Amino acid sequence: MNNKVIIVGVGMTPVGEHWRTSLRDLAVEAILKAMDDAGIDKVDSLYVGNMASGSFIEQENLGALIADWAGLGNIPAVKIEAACASGGAAVQEGVKAVLSGLEDVVLVVGVEKMTDAWPSDATRYLAYASDAEWELFHGVSFVALNALVMRYYMNTYGYTEEDLALFAVNAHANGAKNPYAMFKKPITVETVMKSPYIADPLKLFDASPVCDGAAAVIITTPEKAKELGVPKDKWVEVAGMGRAIDTINLANREDLLTLKAAKIAAEKAYKMAHVEPKDIDFFEVHDAFTIMAALSLEALGVAEKGKGAMLAKEGQIAIDGDYPIQTMGGLKARGHPVGATGVYQAVEATLQLRGEAPNGIQVPDAEVGLTQNIGGTGSNITVTIFRRV
Amino acid sequence: MNNKVIIVGVGMTPVGEHWRTSLRDLAVEAILKAMDDAGIDKVDSLYVGNMASGSFIEQENLGALIADWAGLGNIPAVKIEAACASGGAAVQEGVKAVLSGLEDVVLVVGVEKMTDAWPSDATRYLAYASDAEWELFHGVSFVALNALVMRYYMNTYGYTEEDLALFAVNAHANGAKNPYAMFKKPITVETVMKSPYIADPLKLFDASPVCDGAAAVIITTPEKAKELGVPKDKWVEVAGMGRAIDTINLANREDLLTLKAAKIAAEKAYKMAHVEPKDIDFFEVHDAFTIMAALSLEALGVAEKGKGAMLAKEGQIAIDGDYPIQTMGGLKARGHPVGATGVYQAVEATLQLRGEAPNGIQVPDAEVGLTQNIGGTGSNITVTIFRRV
Repeated sequence: MNNKVIIVGVGMTPVGEHWRTSLRDLAVEAILKAMDDAGIDKVDSLYVGNMASGSFIEQENLGALIADWAGLGNIPAVKIEAACASGGAAVQEGVKAVLSGLEDVVLVVGVEKMTDAWPSDATRYLAYASDAEWELFHGVSFVALNALVMRYYMNTYGYTEEDLALFAVNAHANGAKNPYAMFKKPITVETVMKSPYIADPLKLFDASPVCDGAAAVIITTPEKAKELGVPKDKWVEVAGMGRAIDTINLANREDLLTLKAAKIAAEKAYKMAHVEPKDIDFFEVHDAFTIMAALSLEALGVAEKGKGAMLAKEGQIAIDGDYPIQTMGGLKARGHPVGATGVYQAVEATLQLRGEAPNGIQVPDAEVGLTQNIGGTGSNITVTIFRRV
Repeated sequence: MNNKVIIVGVGMTPVGEHWRTSLRDLAVEAILKAMDDAGIDKVDSLYVGNMASGSFIEQENLGALIADWAGLGNIPAVKIEAACASGGAAVQEGVKAVLSGLEDVVLVVGVEKMTDAWPSDATRYLAYASDAEWELFHGVSFVALNALVMRYYMNTYGYTEEDLALFAVNAHANGAKNPYAMFKKPITVETVMKSPYIADPLKLFDASPVCDGAAAVIITTPEKAKELGVPKDKWVEVAGMGRAIDTINLANREDLLTLKAAKIAAEKAYKMAHVEPKDIDFFEVHDAFTIMAALSLEALGVAEKGKGAMLAKEGQIAIDGDYPIQTMGGLKARGHPVGATGVYQAVEATLQLRGEAPNGIQVPDAEVGLTQNIGGTGSNITVTIFRRV
């Protein structure tokens, strides 16, 4: 078995509406950048994080497609699907593959091409992450499900729409400094409040965008990295990870306002990495909607129950706060090409821990970072902890 | 690390047109049977083999859906997609998870619900396994791609349609004795020849059916199996495995008549299991179309190049032949619920090696069995070798 696992190469495309670039080309671009970053030209296997390429672009079999087009040779290659947590799950499956000892150098790419579909169809395909028979069939969209949770959170703890808007403001403030972000424009609470309702109380600017993008990481062991001559300043350790599911349909939850799957996943990850929330220098959480950022901070143990939104009000989530989140813009501003998001988070955590984050959004002396990726309305959640080597 | 990996429980639904049973119910049925077979009530994680639930039933996030509905608790759960090899890949990912040491008892379920779609749509969704931009877009269906290969094989080596029909005849002869098979009716070469062309020279009876089904296996280590009290007569070792991709689009192949991915996957699996083709008592190959059975036998090293169809002509592929294949009916007669097929193969291999195959199709004294699962037109192939403990 391999005991210690590290990331030695990362790459990504800018997130955006890539009308002239296909899914395969996005994936290949991210892969070649990651291989170039690590200085290697060969990997043992490929994991592809992707949610819904069948629906979006009529293409399954992404493992073969991407390994073939990236020129990786006749390696094992599969797609990992866990709704919007597909990327995070793919990273963790890549780590497992290295731990198994069967593969020494594993490539993980997350990719999603969403803009080839009509916007109304994109909304429909995203709702496949919910319970098709018990939710989707009755006309509830994915946005509507999140709106229900947001309303309940506001009513229960006395927050306003303005309070939750602060998560979007923070994401845009950081995204504005990230050349790979889709939205590079700072916004104010007013911007959010003036944006149209898409499912009351959720406004357009509470939500992450439909977009395209790909990100890739290369996972191996320190022994193998030495053998391949990857310089040590590229290394970042995968120190801990956890993953858990919760009921797929929201109505069956014990508590609408607890991301139980995130709690369980985080506990596992903290234990494996021997750290507590206070040891962590930044958190890339899954702010597909602002409400999910608040609930995530609570489930991760960063805030007490009902206090997640307080961290935003108190300014603690900014780069210079106690708990910086969405340091590269998060899903809201960097963008959320769904199956790619978890891998973008891994790339961003790696850059932060190497000290290679862009000016103004580098977390000073970052030693430990956490990424959290949500599939469905909290039904499939991954937590991964990265540490500077 | 865990070194030796065994299967300790298997379960499956009959394959058929399950109009009144949903995907989740099929999966849960197979899972509960497998857990009952092993006599356990708890697993550490779930892998779901499935190709295209998003397209067929508008449902992604199958890991959460199925773990939730099967009552497995807040475990890690993802879907593995490798087109029609999704099931075989899911079994191998389950083995890797156990080898990683992170999980001791892993459940793998393969499931596909195809009959909820219109037949013309099913044909379309299956074509997502090919290259959407370079094949599907131009109007070539998946059946048509296989027909091209079949015609070229016949022309190159001088075989007739009747010769290839023998693979279907053998599959039905065995399937007739398998209570879980979709088609329990023996057929003759005449039956195949009189069936309509669906893509010349491919006839309806050269092709596996559109259908529904689910199969499950439980994977663990001998140490854990002892601890859980699973009787030793349930154990079957996963002795070797390999997986490889080839070009996704047929036009880019070095040689249309060589399943290179199967060759590479088989070499790895043979090496890992320390066996050669002659040591293997039965082969469950991927006969989605009769031509694929012939090419598979060649790629696995059972027949020389161009001689795969000879084995059928010489009667060597029957239960009492030297190289029994499709002992439970194969994809042709047991049925091919695409993402479930690789797990059905694992279940069937386990039953053969336990000596629990139905009367008339038990391979006498079977000690080693091989399963081979193909995604795309040979673009993503898994080979797994099982051994009696």
